[in-house]
Amino acid sequence: MSWVDGANESGFGTDHLPYGLISTDGGTRRLAVRIGGFALDLAATASAGLVPSVVAHPSLKPLMAAGPAMWSEVRQIVQDLLTDERHQSTVLPLLHDVDAVDVHLPFEVADYVDFYSSEQHATNLGRMFRPDSEPLLPNWKHLPVGYHGRAGTVVVSGTPVHRPSGQRRGQDGPTFGPSERLDIELEMGFVVGVSSEIGSPVALAEAADHIFGFGLVNDWSARDIQAWEYVPLGPFLGKSFATSLAGWVTPLAALDPFRIPQPPQDPEPLPYLRGTDPWGFDIDLEVLLSSRTMREVGLEPVRISATNFGQMYWTPAQQLAHLTVNGASTRTGDLCASGTISGSEPGTYGSFIELTHNGADPLTLPTGETRTFLEDGDEVTLQGRARSAGSFIEMAPVSGQVVG
Amino acid sequence: MSWVDGANESGFGTDHLPYGLISTDGGTRRLAVRIGGFALDLAATASAGLVPSVVAHPSLKPLMAAGPAMWSEVRQIVQDLLTDERHQSTVLPLLHDVDAVDVHLPFEVADYVDFYSSEQHATNLGRMFRPDSEPLLPNWKHLPVGYHGRAGTVVVSGTPVHRPSGQRRGQDGPTFGPSERLDIELEMGFVVGVSSEIGSPVALAEAADHIFGFGLVNDWSARDIQAWEYVPLGPFLGKSFATSLAGWVTPLAALDPFRIPQPPQDPEPLPYLRGTDPWGFDIDLEVLLSSRTMREVGLEPVRISATNFGQMYWTPAQQLAHLTVNGASTRTGDLCASGTISGSEPGTYGSFIELTHNGADPLTLPTGETRTFLEDGDEVTLQGRARSAGSFIEMAPVSGQVVG
Repeated sequence: MSWVDGANESGFGTDHLPYGLISTDGGTRRLAVRIGGFALDLAATASAGLVPSVVAHPSLKPLMAAGPAMWSEVRQIVQDLLTDERHQSTVLPLLHDVDAVDVHLPFEVADYVDFYSSEQHATNLGRMFRPDSEPLLPNWKHLPVGYHGRAGTVVVSGTPVHRPSGQRRGQDGPTFGPSERLDIELEMGFVVGVSSEIGSPVALAEAADHIFGFGLVNDWSARDIQAWEYVPLGPFLGKSFATSLAGWVTPLAALDPFRIPQPPQDPEPLPYLRGTDPWGFDIDLEVLLSSRTMREVGLEPVRISATNFGQMYWTPAQQLAHLTVNGASTRTGDLCASGTISGSEPGTYGSFIELTHNGADPLTLPTGETRTFLEDGDEVTLQGRARSAGSFIEMAPVSGQVVG
Repeated sequence: MSWVDGANESGFGTDHLPYGLISTDGGTRRLAVRIGGFALDLAATASAGLVPSVVAHPSLKPLMAAGPAMWSEVRQIVQDLLTDERHQSTVLPLLHDVDAVDVHLPFEVADYVDFYSSEQHATNLGRMFRPDSEPLLPNWKHLPVGYHGRAGTVVVSGTPVHRPSGQRRGQDGPTFGPSERLDIELEMGFVVGVSSEIGSPVALAEAADHIFGFGLVNDWSARDIQAWEYVPLGPFLGKSFATSLAGWVTPLAALDPFRIPQPPQDPEPLPYLRGTDPWGFDIDLEVLLSSRTMREVGLEPVRISATNFGQMYWTPAQQLAHLTVNGASTRTGDLCASGTISGSEPGTYGSFIELTHNGADPLTLPTGETRTFLEDGDEVTLQGRARSAGSFIEMAPVSGQVVG
């Protein structure tokens, strides 16, 4: 139990302790840990000699690279500082009201990979795009399908998202203009902490030695741009304009209590994709939407989807093993997103294209407005919560507002 | 004309001056300019107060980011140092035999994008993979098709390339093992110097303010892995194991004399892809192959393809305009490769899959060995030469040997 006011039962107690990069009044960026409604300045904590200096950098990268032993050491020290009341007078001045700090991307993303690991999402999209054939392509149950996205346009939660312009299929050749089918994708990303060398695959059983933590990801998607461009080399401009990442990275250790077995895999995957540790995570997820009009009349965001991360067909450990099985190296700061997380029921889909059945069934907002895809001014927030007996962890939300 | 022994007529005269990152005897990395058979240590040159300090970093990035005015200034100063004999006694001690230095990746690649801009290559592959339909997909003549590759596995010329293992399509589901169809792709890459902001497309007419220079790229490809994995999200592990970049980056200014108009475009592209400046480059390209046996018996590498960069359907300026038209930002160090460069005749193809007609027509080497795809021990070298009246520029070659 923490001595920090309101921390226990906030979802940001000492069993959570996500890392972020903060600044105050435009000053230098410092690594921080979130506790309740506060951010503990780790640079200042290190200056006071209370934590190792690996956290005294303006990036999460040195800590991520330092490996599991250091991750544990820092976590235990911070837990102790925030639990033992004897530290209160020393540590209290190092806390900032989290609403009074600016939160930045905690590390420069090295490579960004986006997977496609929800069976329900892949099935839903296959039905829409290839109605006359099997919804899942032949490779889908044999490997975690994925592709590289644009690392340079990963932005931190709260960054406005510019509606992309681009080419869309038209009656007489392509037309050009702002996307008319701007969508979200509800995803969870893992971050590589410890890098691996070229030519040296990371075995599935070693995944926990490399994966530092998790954050919610919104993989904004312009469906009209994507549909015209994506053959034969995959999504490009339909995705590359922005990808939003939560501002606070939840360490893997905080999610250990919520591990569950992944769904059964049939056919059994190849040996390099088999493991015994459970790498599913029981985390409830929600998509919230507010329109400009809703905010003007004082309405709260409305929940348009609720699902769970635990049912993903391919796990983060399988994704990392697959990503490296060809000898590809990884770097500290690689971000691997899960792919859209969708359940099997209509209200559990992680994208508008699924929620509205490709635009055929608009959502109705409390104002009476309807939505097939996103309008300018719309703000989307993804949030997640993992519950255990008597406690819960709140994944830091990822938000973004569409600007025209 | 340079006073450096053998520099004139070497392809690395004062009209070229590509940049690289060198070290000697495992020491610190210093930026350098190649002149003839020598590397001019720019860090030492800057220490002597002869060039601006922007070149005194262990990366090409600060100079790339500094923009066209600084690019010109440094280039003119270096040209003067290497031309005016009064500088000879000062500069001579700053030259290293290029064979005696280690050459490193000159900058950390930010995002890596691979285009697909040779009409002949796209047509050849379309015929092979979709024999019953139009070889070019409907979008191909409307936009430069491209996708993101793995930036973290871009390696400098000379780095051994590990044969990737992975899943291949089998009779009864996928099989796993080393790729049996390991291929090359002959490409030319441009490097972004001056970055651009998110939400601010780079107009085609501004491309020269952003593009720093060019280098040959070998986009190694495992065709069997790629064929099984690539639907629907594009190439991933079939490409991500390694991409080789030449160790010396040719500045755009050195290629200005070789600009030619690109081939006519029909249909006319959308306005954002139209421009008046010529962005084709008349550069002859060759693919050289040597097998382990060839080297053991003292045979020189054999030329297996000869083509020209000038016939690419989409130009670097169009690629950059397209890449950013959706508002995607660029960063200093973004690498954009052209896609495989293939001509229309059999001996002008830039990949084994084309040269051997998907493996049906093996190449015969001087030893009598045959090749459909690459064997362990094979070494591939891509080279390029731009000729003008009385002079030529030799693009720095990119080489790699396959290791099992």
